[in-house]
Amino acid sequence: MTSSFDPVFRTSILVRFGDCDPAGIVFYPRYFEMFNNLVEDWCAVGLEHSFRALHMEQGLGLPTVHIETDFVAASELGETLCAELQVRKFGATSITLGIRLLGPDGADRVRCTLVLVLLDLHKRSAVSLPEALRTRIARFCVTQ
Amino acid sequence: MTSSFDPVFRTSILVRFGDCDPAGIVFYPRYFEMFNNLVEDWCAVGLEHSFRALHMEQGLGLPTVHIETDFVAASELGETLCAELQVRKFGATSITLGIRLLGPDGADRVRCTLVLVLLDLHKRSAVSLPEALRTRIARFCVTQ
Amino acid sequence: MTSSFDPVFRTSILVRFGDCDPAGIVFYPRYFEMFNNLVEDWCAVGLEHSFRALHMEQGLGLPTVHIETDFVAASELGETLCAELQVRKFGATSITLGIRLLGPDGADRVRCTLVLVLLDLHKRSAVSLPEALRTRIARFCVTQ
Amino acid sequence: MTSSFDPVFRTSILVRFGDCDPAGIVFYPRYFEMFNNLVEDWCAVGLEHSFRALHMEQGLGLPTVHIETDFVAASELGETLCAELQVRKFGATSITLGIRLLGPDGADRVRCTLVLVLLDLHKRSAVSLPEALRTRIARFCVTQ
Repeated sequence: MTSSFDPVFRTSILVRFGDCDPAGIVFYPRYFEMFNNLVEDWCAVGLEHSFRALHMEQGLGLPTVHIETDFVAASELGETLCAELQVRKFGATSITLGIRLLGPDGADRVRCTLVLVLLDLHKRSAVSLPEALRTRIARFCVTQ
Repeated sequence: MTSSFDPVFRTSILVRFGDCDPAGIVFYPRYFEMFNNLVEDWCAVGLEHSFRALHMEQGLGLPTVHIETDFVAASELGETLCAELQVRKFGATSITLGIRLLGPDGADRVRCTLVLVLLDLHKRSAVSLPEALRTRIARFCVTQ
Repeated sequence: MTSSFDPVFRTSILVRFGDCDPAGIVFYPRYFEMFNNLVEDWCAVGLEHSFRALHMEQGLGLPTVHIETDFVAASELGETLCAELQVRKFGATSITLGIRLLGPDGADRVRCTLVLVLLDLHKRSAVSLPEALRTRIARFCVTQ
Repeated sequence: MTSSFDPVFRTSILVRFGDCDPAGIVFYPRYFEMFNNLVEDWCAVGLEHSFRALHMEQGLGLPTVHIETDFVAASELGETLCAELQVRKFGATSITLGIRLLGPDGADRVRCTLVLVLLDLHKRSAVSLPEALRTRIARFCVTQ
């Protein structure tokens, strides 16, 4: 890892027609779909572990066990939001993520803290994060 | 079967906030979720075969292979629609359903023809409708 | 208000096929749609203010500004959950709700605290809860 | 228009966790959200008319009035589909689109014919396609 590695995982999100409610702004449950897509992309690209491989091949899941969200300002149809994901901390079996969605002006729209647990889908019990995965997760940890 | 059996399966559907788009009317992909819920209820109640039992216990699915839909008039937030389902025909492995959603005034909002196939989820191939299921399906067949 | 008034607003929620992910359990963003439906029903039935009337006639909205959720245990396809909503507190312009989803065995599946704000949709600013609404909200307030 | 203009509008679609059902394949109502996103992108990029401008500034909508879809083969979590959109024909107020989703092997997954109508959202009546829009639509018309 060189010093130039950016510990923030970023994507952009277009606010689509199907995301918006009769007030013309994002219907808040859609934000959680956006968060799940962001985590999915981070796993695939940032951690090199696709949800498909986790679920289908390894019998593992990464369910969300806790979530706290502040909806700071509304997002409108057609806006492109900047999504940022960082690792706040991680333990034996869990990962705490910080997510921010920013408007085109750079101001916060949504701030979220999300706790994921690595789960054996058959036993329905938490499993330890493998060492290779921990190393990759650590690269996105801000307090490291 | 007595003469009093109604071959039309009916439910009511409330148009919810999360179903509506910035124009304040149902976002059309939500109608297909309503159709799937209707088919799910018909299976559970009308055919006495829950999706859970089909999928989890019997390894069967009932995927939609063809759908034709006319969106006749828009449906607004807060309206209660009447949903009607009938069997148009059924063959060895497939069922053709006719679905109508009616507004509070009884006029058509959406009309749909939908073809389902009974599928072995592991082999990913069509399987014959069991005799017990055929008997129940026949009760909802208008041309019977 | 007689002493028999139940300050807990309750509905039941069927876990549908379209709510579930490849692991056969509820995809967590769907829980927030369930919460929004619950709040919608509570407004219409418990507070006698439909979302339709609020949005379409009064130009008001009731957006969620903060949410905290614990996903205690997974919910499976075909289960019927019991949803409970209570008012924890309310201020000049905001309402804090406590929501619980219980499994068929009565154990917690999801626990949620949710803060709503009454909003003028045109001005995009908070407005005071009208007195008539405050009286109805107070009936569901556990600490009253 | 030079001879090099491609009359097929193309995007790629990643099959996400939230798109998939308990059988691990795309839940069919999600395909219609994909179609709507595709039409939204085609309008913005291909026709230079964003849904936002149409709805918010011009008071116009482009609702789907008819849809016919064949679900040829299932799509699995993690696959990247190729989406293709063409104009089949267009009249005074309506546009008929042909949409195909192709799997990574280039074989058809979903084929769809979709009829859109340009609508005045306030009057709720069809309006003529403006000349500038007709010229752009014509570029994507295969039978031109």
